[in-house]
Amino acid sequence: MGSRYGLQGKILADEQSKFQRITIIESANYGKGLLLDNCWMTMESKDQNYHECLVHPAICSAEKLDKILIIGGGDGGSAKECLRHEEVKHIDMVEIDNRVIELSKKYLPNLGGDAWKDQRLHLHIKDGQDWIKTIPANYYDVIIVDSSDPKGPSKGLFNKKFFQNCKFALKESGVFASQSESPDAFQEIHIDTVKTIREVFENADPLYGNVPMYPSGFWSWTFASIDKPRYHNPKPRRIESIIETCEIWSPRWQKGGFNAIPACIERALKQ
Amino acid sequence: MGSRYGLQGKILADEQSKFQRITIIESANYGKGLLLDNCWMTMESKDQNYHECLVHPAICSAEKLDKILIIGGGDGGSAKECLRHEEVKHIDMVEIDNRVIELSKKYLPNLGGDAWKDQRLHLHIKDGQDWIKTIPANYYDVIIVDSSDPKGPSKGLFNKKFFQNCKFALKESGVFASQSESPDAFQEIHIDTVKTIREVFENADPLYGNVPMYPSGFWSWTFASIDKPRYHNPKPRRIESIIETCEIWSPRWQKGGFNAIPACIERALKQ
Repeated sequence: MGSRYGLQGKILADEQSKFQRITIIESANYGKGLLLDNCWMTMESKDQNYHECLVHPAICSAEKLDKILIIGGGDGGSAKECLRHEEVKHIDMVEIDNRVIELSKKYLPNLGGDAWKDQRLHLHIKDGQDWIKTIPANYYDVIIVDSSDPKGPSKGLFNKKFFQNCKFALKESGVFASQSESPDAFQEIHIDTVKTIREVFENADPLYGNVPMYPSGFWSWTFASIDKPRYHNPKPRRIESIIETCEIWSPRWQKGGFNAIPACIERALKQ
Repeated sequence: MGSRYGLQGKILADEQSKFQRITIIESANYGKGLLLDNCWMTMESKDQNYHECLVHPAICSAEKLDKILIIGGGDGGSAKECLRHEEVKHIDMVEIDNRVIELSKKYLPNLGGDAWKDQRLHLHIKDGQDWIKTIPANYYDVIIVDSSDPKGPSKGLFNKKFFQNCKFALKESGVFASQSESPDAFQEIHIDTVKTIREVFENADPLYGNVPMYPSGFWSWTFASIDKPRYHNPKPRRIESIIETCEIWSPRWQKGGFNAIPACIERALKQ
């Protein structure tokens, strides 16, 4: 298997969908989790390490939260984190693979939690690359790309044209967020992704953290915006509404994560 | 094996010393590395992720660098990082297990590098717990505890009495540094260690980073001082002398790492 987090345990589901191999395992040490094409995507016991870090820096700092787009995110974790904010009025979740949603709902219900029943969540089983091309200018307040690695069905979510389409669909006062791979295990992809997002958006910065089940454990998310680097300034009322129940994220943690760029990556991004 | 970083490859040495099992492996993906009692200690390709983070916040901020103590550190990595600073006049390195030093010199020569030949490095094959009891007050400028996990030969390097002895031996304007385990994989030990160091020293703060070959990849080091939290203020001339050749550490990275405390750990430390 292409992962390095303990896999001892039993397989609850394992199937080849139209797009990818989907595996749900119950590991002896870490509980239930999801693998796509043999790579860890998430697990119930550690989903905050990924989803809080991808969602809250964006959703706490966009000017409004009327319309949110999540591309990917079929396990439900990103939608759940978004919907903790009462200001969120409407989420379009565009997931290419319906089987990821169905198997996550069945075997990993805690990941999505009540999000699946929330009237504000609107599911679309479509390719996010196609979806974004149909959106008018200045439409979304927040765009979250919650994808797997840039191969297979996620390959098209890491190129300049896609980021340009996202920028077109984003409000001037909105925030764009994407996972941007490991600065250790996938250093070149990480650097390329950040550089490409910076070519497209006026403001873009990588945030560093830890996702134990991913290769090396060292992970990144990149946030981008148009009018100002507003992802550095989460709004107090939104912070207050979630801070006591976050496992990882806090304004302090976020400030740290934006600064905790390894010296070698900082040099590479300047080149 | 009690580790989760790829172990495919060949074993170059594997022996039971008086204190522990010592294994040197050459892994297919990550090069040569050292395991003690089946746990990864370090590897040539990633030693900076650990040693830069343990050493430079302390050594860049102590008032003087006349006398340095390293407890443990038999692979040579901490000594090498210290000796990059010309101001360092004398290092006592107190390693309990001579075989760790001998096998590291033979199989992992890049870890210690020229440190082993440096006249400023003084090796003592002794138990650091005993050594520290013999030191007069206000003796060392920097004390670095570069230990394995708190069991076996390192068990005594994590208790209050040991930290008190370190404080006694440390100058008022000195800095104490210890690895303080994973906030993810060993969360309870991490919290206990930080709390205990805070009970002893006037100032103490954990710094968070990533060491890919350690459990979860998420790691911490705790810095402590007497006169003021001087580890937050590395001295410009020392920064300049190393910054261009650091892989991970920079003043910005360090500032980030001190802030990047997960929300759940921040709450636990307040209790």
